[in-house]
Formats: sequence, C-alpha cells, structure tokens
Amino acid sequence: MKNFQVIFLPSGRRGKIPQGETVLEASRELGVGIESICGGKRSCGKCKIKCVQGDLSPFTEEEGRLITESERTEGYRLGCAAQILGNAQIFVPEESRTQEQVVRKEASERSIELKPAIVPQFVELSPPSLHDPLGDFDRLQKALCEKYHLPKIRIDYPALLKLSRALRQGEWKVTVATWMGQEILDVKPGREDNLYGIAIDVGTTTVAGYLCNLTTGQLVATQSMMNPQVVYGEDVLSRIAYALTHPDALEKVNRSIIDALNQLIGAVAQRTGLTSEDILELTIVGNTAMHHLLLKIDPQYLAVSPFTPVVHRSMDIKARDLGLKVHSSANVHILPVEAGFVGADNVGVLIAEEPYRQDAMVLIIDIGTNGELVMGNRKRLLSSSCATGPALEGAHIKFGMRAAPGAIERVSIDPNTLEVNFKTIGEKNWQLGSSSASAIGICGSGIIDLVAELFRNKIILQSGRFSEGIPSSRLRISDQGREFVVVWKDETSIGKDITITQQDIRNVQLAKGALYTGAKLMMKKLGVEKLDKVILAGAFGTYISTEAAMILGMFPDCDLRNVYAVGNAAGDGARIALLNREKRAEADEIAQKVEYVELTIEKDFQKEFIDALSFPHAKDPFPHLKGLLKE
Amino acid sequence: MKNFQVIFLPSGRRGKIPQGETVLEASRELGVGIESICGGKRSCGKCKIKCVQGDLSPFTEEEGRLITESERTEGYRLGCAAQILGNAQIFVPEESRTQEQVVRKEASERSIELKPAIVPQFVELSPPSLHDPLGDFDRLQKALCEKYHLPKIRIDYPALLKLSRALRQGEWKVTVATWMGQEILDVKPGREDNLYGIAIDVGTTTVAGYLCNLTTGQLVATQSMMNPQVVYGEDVLSRIAYALTHPDALEKVNRSIIDALNQLIGAVAQRTGLTSEDILELTIVGNTAMHHLLLKIDPQYLAVSPFTPVVHRSMDIKARDLGLKVHSSANVHILPVEAGFVGADNVGVLIAEEPYRQDAMVLIIDIGTNGELVMGNRKRLLSSSCATGPALEGAHIKFGMRAAPGAIERVSIDPNTLEVNFKTIGEKNWQLGSSSASAIGICGSGIIDLVAELFRNKIILQSGRFSEGIPSSRLRISDQGREFVVVWKDETSIGKDITITQQDIRNVQLAKGALYTGAKLMMKKLGVEKLDKVILAGAFGTYISTEAAMILGMFPDCDLRNVYAVGNAAGDGARIALLNREKRAEADEIAQKVEYVELTIEKDFQKEFIDALSFPHAKDPFPHLKGLLKE
Repeated sequence: MKNFQVIFLPSGRRGKIPQGETVLEASRELGVGIESICGGKRSCGKCKIKCVQGDLSPFTEEEGRLITESERTEGYRLGCAAQILGNAQIFVPEESRTQEQVVRKEASERSIELKPAIVPQFVELSPPSLHDPLGDFDRLQKALCEKYHLPKIRIDYPALLKLSRALRQGEWKVTVATWMGQEILDVKPGREDNLYGIAIDVGTTTVAGYLCNLTTGQLVATQSMMNPQVVYGEDVLSRIAYALTHPDALEKVNRSIIDALNQLIGAVAQRTGLTSEDILELTIVGNTAMHHLLLKIDPQYLAVSPFTPVVHRSMDIKARDLGLKVHSSANVHILPVEAGFVGADNVGVLIAEEPYRQDAMVLIIDIGTNGELVMGNRKRLLSSSCATGPALEGAHIKFGMRAAPGAIERVSIDPNTLEVNFKTIGEKNWQLGSSSASAIGICGSGIIDLVAELFRNKIILQSGRFSEGIPSSRLRISDQGREFVVVWKDETSIGKDITITQQDIRNVQLAKGALYTGAKLMMKKLGVEKLDKVILAGAFGTYISTEAAMILGMFPDCDLRNVYAVGNAAGDGARIALLNREKRAEADEIAQKVEYVELTIEKDFQKEFIDALSFPHAKDPFPHLKGLLKE
Repeated sequence: MKNFQVIFLPSGRRGKIPQGETVLEASRELGVGIESICGGKRSCGKCKIKCVQGDLSPFTEEEGRLITESERTEGYRLGCAAQILGNAQIFVPEESRTQEQVVRKEASERSIELKPAIVPQFVELSPPSLHDPLGDFDRLQKALCEKYHLPKIRIDYPALLKLSRALRQGEWKVTVATWMGQEILDVKPGREDNLYGIAIDVGTTTVAGYLCNLTTGQLVATQSMMNPQVVYGEDVLSRIAYALTHPDALEKVNRSIIDALNQLIGAVAQRTGLTSEDILELTIVGNTAMHHLLLKIDPQYLAVSPFTPVVHRSMDIKARDLGLKVHSSANVHILPVEAGFVGADNVGVLIAEEPYRQDAMVLIIDIGTNGELVMGNRKRLLSSSCATGPALEGAHIKFGMRAAPGAIERVSIDPNTLEVNFKTIGEKNWQLGSSSASAIGICGSGIIDLVAELFRNKIILQSGRFSEGIPSSRLRISDQGREFVVVWKDETSIGKDITITQQDIRNVQLAKGALYTGAKLMMKKLGVEKLDKVILAGAFGTYISTEAAMILGMFPDCDLRNVYAVGNAAGDGARIALLNREKRAEADEIAQKVEYVELTIEKDFQKEFIDALSFPHAKDPFPHLKGLLKE
C-alpha cells in the first residue's frame, strides 16, 4: 500500500499516511485533535476540514447534507468521509478543533455513612516454631478469628502468594485487607490504615472516576475522560450495532473501555501519589449497554424486543478477570441494572436520591445521550427510558458543541430589542457583541436557554416554527431555511455567524418531547395529577436553567422551587456503594422492585408524543409558568 | 555465539548447537532421548555418552566420581557435564537411552460413593416477553431456585459470557453445571448428562492423571508422565533450593509443572474423544513442596526449621488463575497438607485408607522420593516423613534404572548354586542366563528383591557388608570395591556385567533405615509394641515383594498376611475427593487432626537410625520372619 505525506495546519503536524485512510483517521494517528461526536459515521458534521492542497477522494452525497454549497466551494470536507489519495495539506478550522472538555461530572457533596466492603484489620501473630509449626495462612486465619471473629475467611490466590513474605517482613505484625468479612485481598507488613477504591460512572460519552479513601471516606480525586467507544457509535444503539458487526467487534469495543479505565485509574492514582495497585475495589455504574460492553457480554438482545439484559443483579468480579490493571486481588462491584434501557447508572441515582424513602411524588430525570426517568415514592416506583438523542448535548445542532471553552452556555434575549446576551464557558461575564467575544458554538445548556428565550420572546411559536414578521435582522432565511443569528460573525472566533436553525429547534423538540411523554405516561400509570418534586440528575442537569427547561416543557408542571439539580447522581451512587456495603444490598433490592415501563408499547405513546412536541405542551396547563411567559 | 554441528549416534540426529551447551542440553534440543534422573546435576551418572570425535570441554572431577578409569579411556563422559566446544559426534550407549517408563500409577479399584461437587442440572425456562422481560441470568436463577432450591447461586464470569447464546440455542432448555450448589460453571444448550473432571497426583518424579466422568463416577482414562521439574532437582530439597536461586526460578519451576499438566490433560482428553475444555474440575494431591511449586507459592520456609508450609488447608482456586488450560470456569481443589514434609498426597492416602475409622494399629508407608509414614487408629494418628532418597527408585544405584522395559524387576538366588534368576519388565518369564536375555539395569523392586536374596543367602551380612569367602565367581572385587554380578555381560543388551556394589547396598540401607526409624519412633510415641497391619501405598509399594521388604527391615515386624500394597493411594485419594465432596471436608478435618512428628528432633533418632541400618535390624526381633531366613 502507498503512503502519502499529510500535513495538518495550523499545527504543522505531519506524517506518512496509508492511501485510503480518512482525514479523521490520519488526524488521530498524527495526534491532531479533530472534533467528532458521531465517531466518524458522517452524521454529526463536526469534523469539517478544508483541503488546502492535495488529493482527496471525491465529494460524497453524505457530505452534501452537512456541508453548504458555499463551504464546498471553499474546499470544506467532512474529515470522516474524505480519504487521502495523495500528498495533502489539511486545514483544521477552529470550530472543528477538539477542545478539552470541561469536566461536568464533579462529585456532589453528600454525607455517606462509612461501611466499606473492604477494611484494614491489624493482627499480631506468634511466630511458628518446631512445637507450633502451623502454616502461615492457617496461623493468620486463627488470629483473625480470635480478634475479629472471621472463622471462615478465605484468601484470594494472588494474596496467598505474598503472604509468607509479608508476615516475615512485618515481623508477624500485618494488616489484612478483608472483603465483606469473607476474603483476604491483601496482606501488608505492619500497620497500614489507608485503603483505596474507585467509583466509576461509565457514561455513553464520558467516563468519570472518583478515587476514595475507603478508611476515611474522603474523596481523594476525580478524573474524567471521553468514553473512547464513541468511535464505535455515539449512542447506545449504534454502539451495540457495531459490536455485532463481526466476531471480533465486541472484543474491540470491550477492549477500548477497559483500556480507558486502566488509563483513567493510572492517571488519577499518579496524580495523588498512589499507584493502580493501591486500588482494592471498584464500583461501577453505567447504562445497560455500557454495562454489557464493559463486561464483554453479548449485547444483541438489548437491541431487540423484549430488550432483556443478560443479567440484572449486581455482580462481583475479579478485576483481573476483566483485564483491569489494579490490585491483583481487587474486586469489581457492578451495580444491578433495572432493564434493557434503564441501567446501573439509574440504580446509582436511586440509592443516591432514595425516592423509595419519600412520601412526595418525585420525578427524577437523568439526561444523558439516553434519558432515564424514575417516578414514584415509598409506595411504588416506575422507571422508563427514552431516546433523547444527543441534541441536548450539542450534537445534531448546527453550531452545537460539547461543553468546552468558547461554548455559549447561557443566553438571554432582550424582550425589547431582541438583542442577545450570552456567556461562554471560560468567561466570567456575560457578553453582548464585543470584540473580545470568543464564542465558538453553543453547548447543551446554552441551547436550552436559547430556545426558551426564543419562545418567551415569541420568536418561535408553540409549534416550534419561527414566527414571521419579527422586526430583527437576526431572523433570516438561509439556503437551509429560517435561522436566528445568535452571535454575529465578528463577535465569534470562527469568523462565521453562529445561528440556530429550524432543524436545530426541531431536534430539541424531539428530545424534550420524548422526556415529557415518558413522564406523562408514568403519571397516568401511577394515577398522579401533579408532581411534588422534579430532580434533574446527570452532569447536564446541573448546568441548565430549571426555568428554561420547564418553559420548553422538558417535564410536566411543578413548583419551580421544587425543581433542582443534583449533579452526577449516578456517579454519586457508585461512590455511595463503594463506601457503604449495605447500600449494595439496597441497590439490588430496589432494582428488583422498580417497575420498568416500556414506553413505546403504551397505547397513548404516539398521541402523547405529538402533543409533547409543542412548547411547553399542546394541551397540558403549566400554572407555575404564569408570569414567566407572555400570554 | 558460535554454533557447531553435533551428530548423535546411533540415531543420526543432527543440528547446530551453540558453543558451551552440554551434550544433554543438545540432546534435548535435537530430540534425542538421554536418560537423566538427577536432571543434569552430575549426580546420578545415568547420562553417560561416548564422544566418537570432536571437541568437548575437559573431563571434570565430578565425572571422575561416576565414570571409571577404563570408561574414561574409551571416551565416556557425563552428558550433563561435557560441553560442546566444536563439531562433534556423540554415541549414546543403550543403557543411557531413555525408555518409555512403565506407568506404575494405575488407579486401584475402589468403590467410591458418588457425591461430586459438580452436577448437571437441567432446567426449562419460559422465554422472555415484553410483559416478562426478566434478564437471562435472573431467569435462570429463578428456575434453578424453583427446581433445585438454589436461591443464592452465583455465576462465574466466563460462564456469564456464554449464557445468552446457550439459552437461545437450547430454546430455553439448558443444562447448568453447578459447583457445590454455589456457583454456575457452565451452561449448555439442551440436556447434557456427562460432566468430566480429573484427579491429579503430582509426584516428585511422576505425575498421574485420572480422568473421571463426574456423573457416573467411571474412571475414563489414566495418563501419566514424568514431572518435568526433575531437571531442576531430583528430590524436593534440591528443587526448592533451585526455586530460590534467582527471582525468576520459582516462576520457571512453576511454569514447567503447569505446562506439563496442560499437556497431560490435553493428551488424556484427546485419547478419550474429549477436549481440555470438557474438564470442569481438578483435584490435586502432591507433597508439600510439589503443592507449593504448583501454586507458585514461595517454598523457602519449607526447607528451614520449623518447616512451616504457607498454607495447610485445602484451597479452591480457579484453573485460569493457575494458568491451567481447561474449562474457563473450572475449579481446582487442592487437598490440604499436614506439614512441611507430609503433604496433600498423604492426606489422599488417609481418605483412601481411612485408618481413622479402624481399631487396628496401622502403619501406612508411602514410598516415593520422599517417604511418608502414618501410624495410628481411630484414637490417634501420627504422621512423619523421612528422606529415603531416590535409591529405592533406582537412582544412586550403579545399574539402577527406572521401571522401563529391560529393567530387572524380580530376582531370586539359588541357595545351592548362588546362580541368579531374574525377570525383566516386558518379559513374561523368568530368565536364567539365556542369550535371549535383554536386561539393561535394575529397577526398584528388583533391587529390593536382590538385596533381600543376597541377605537370605548370606552373601551379604546383617551389617550390609559382602561376606568373604563365598564360593562364587559372581562375588568379585572391582576398582570400586566388592560387587556381585547379577547378570553376566553376554546376557545383557548393554554389553557389560550388571552388578550391585557395596555402595549400592549402603544406599539401600540408608533408605530402609530411615523408614524403619520413623516407624519405630512413632510406635514409641504411641506406646505400641506391635503393628496389626502394614499398608504399602505408592506405585512403588505395589511392585515390591512384601516378604523381601520385611527381610530388609523396611518396617517393623508384622504378620505378613497383614502386609499389603494398595497401589497409588494418594492418587486414589485425589479421585475420591473428585467424586465425593464430603470427603473433601473429611480431608480437611483429618489433616488438622493428624499429629506431625518431626523425627529428626526426637532424642533417640540417631541411635535408632544406626540400629535400623542392619538387615533386618540390629536388635529388634522379627518373629514373622522365622523360617524365611537361615539362622
């Protein structure tokens, strides 16, 4: 195969690339960051590049859908579609450059009762003699039995291999790390009080790890990264589909998340002066597809009716069996899943928020690439899931982007002038058309603000369509239909007007309509007229304006004082399970108890969905929006 | 490094060998079988070769001890000492050629109550639907709970990965292999009654495997092989010493036995139309050193006072953690050990022979490279061990050899003529100086017969010294002292007189004296005057004449009708544990109960040992030998 010289601009990185590789693939090999939300599936349009000179494969029909005629004339291509057919110089425009994503999966402050599965137990043994030649393990077991009443404790095989040395190094005083009072995971010479574990939230897009001291309960450090599986599909269904394409695909998809976890754990351990070998336990949450792919379990039945997972209940698996490079005896506790589309992440949210201990009728919305809903109280709990799509995360939106510096995260529109105020990530102050503005695109929370403001100011109608006859140059017609200019070209750092299009609004409607429909059908099932509380879980929920969300009708009417965000509750749930073994049992119990509602087979689904597309809803009243919306 | 052309004769095998390799190493690389009992440690003298032409390293002092002056002039060398320093032609004399060893570890016929740890459980499930979308494992668990009352059964991780496919292939009818009612090891579509396991006896010299059908209890096949660790030392102490020589040595010694087990299992499975993946459980016995090396446990404390093992009690370890290539979820049950020198093999003997259920005072002798003794009855049980050395297995005996075709296994001496009758392995009839005789050497049972016959006929005295003035040309003086010609040159196939030397007899005395001393000290400890029963366990015990053994004084006096061999009882014990889980608990219990006696610290040890060197003993009476010995 031929190789060609490819140079990326403005970075100047260069190297030999085999004929036929895409520009996106080449960029990865050469360490050039090009944005790609869909993972090279030619659907998100985020990887646009400009061919300065050289031979690329012919322009495709698929690219035509995402690249305007004028862009095409300038030489724009999709990095994932254009193949290298000769030496080439490629310019990566600023809006296509990957930005370091702002970690939006911080752990919340929660008080967690400390009852870890793994505890350090210090024992002092009498050394063996010819008159008392009892073997090392049996001697240790006897001491543990006497001091801690652990008569039947086992020792994990790798720990057995270290035993004799540790006992002698510690001069017969050792600290034993025991798991659930059942198994010895480690034996260290002398006294060693601090043991460590990590709680991991495997999101479809982002993976977050929370390194904790198991003895003090302290959150030592948080680390997050992209889920590298995005290259195999941006949402769970396309990722499952990929895993089924050929016999090695599941292995590959599994390998990529395992490698990522090893990398994440290595990084967070190093940052805190530890090593991966110090990690004695992992608790993991993730939606059911992430759960299966992480465990290398065949996910095919998740994608077809009746959408059954291979396993619901929690599992304890040796980290070494999963290929995780942590302590050789480390345990991995994977929280239980509720259903094919309501996973261990939702169980994490449940044990963190405990709706099953409340009288109030609660709706918990966990918005990720997939939306998961829980509704109920101590009497009964329902869960459901809906495909919100990645629109609320900035994909499938013309100028959408991830939460990264330069992303517009807050928007307000002056009701009189219809001028736009906005705030970008990384800037302290709101901006209004100044030359210092450095907007690159709009992230999820900005999109919600923006659409809510457009609706409040009647720039879009209840149906989502742009009004006609609005006296503003910002509302205009492009070759792709009507659009609203959020930031003028000169105020951006991409040299283009940042706009929101009719199609963008349509995508937001589909996402919020799905969430609303789910909540509505669950209310019907429970015979509930109104919600007492709405909890927005997930990183995303933390950054959006609850008011804007309700104006859009992302959920049914509720007193806004009782609508609040709780951050990454799924990750918090993983952390709670890490630090409190009793919560694991509670998780298994509640995962069995919660009733999963398959929304798509509910008879009113279509009708409800259509009504829910309107802002905030075609029919349902929103008494708590009184005063917030013009009549 | 330089390579030289080396040709082995008479086979004609040839190849390039790096400068400095020994002839023995070269022979292994080129697939030429040269005998070596000590594993290349220049101590057994079995690897003699003749240099026909070429450059070898200079003759060493060590070789001088094992090669006579006349052999030296003919060009004889030790294969393990002579290094290749140039192109060479090497002749391998017949007595140095490896013979296929006769498997002497057949399983005994024993009736074993069938209560295997692993049982096949057939269940039929209702398929999932949208109204009953319970996950695969949870569905299976429910069915197992309903039919077999296994409410808390776990599934081993690799089995989980196969689950969804097996359920659907079997159209929701599957057979589950469950272990101890606690864990699912496998799920197979449809009905599958036959499950398999293998019991393994890891001897210092020989490894034997007994493949069993766990459902019927049937012994499907037996397979044995040399323990490849012999190259790292022929007895347990030298093998432990090797394992401590450098950091990777333990890894290497462990790897060699694991590889051997994989090879043995693969071979026996293939022979019987199965595959290694069909093996769901292994039970393993072996002495404590073999036990530690197999588990890759640091054996250093076994070799120094107070000789404590790292672990006494039985262990259940996943085969995959040990690197054994069997079923991915297979369990390895290693029987408990009693002490540093009384291992799981002895526990195997105990559960096979059950002295703890008898009133009679029993002595069980398990003769291997290491001798293990148990004495007692239902009231009390003692165990001890003694270094018999490999003399009784044919090593350290001038014409000693393993039990292989051509080995003299039976000897009688005519009291009148002092002529020798003998029988070799592979020949049906006894031979007396015929030209068809094809003796190569003498194996263990032949040596015992021979020495007993020499003593009965007063050719050797009670002290073990050759008598003077015996009217036979067979008794002669060589440059190494007195020796007795067992087979004249012309009646052998090695073209040399097969003799037994004074040194050979001395080695037999040391071995038998150690056994006798152990038994005697244990009798003293128990306050016992006489033995009711003597059981010879071990492959070796099966082939020796009990009469000859008592004439030599290998054990104290006993009615010969109550002295019998039980074959490889250690291997039988492993098989019993494989087929009956309750016997595993019994093994753990008895291993704790038996009292280990460290013989060397007993105050009468030296005195007793010296008296025990005589045939049959310096002082103790042997009423049951009356009539068997001339006065």
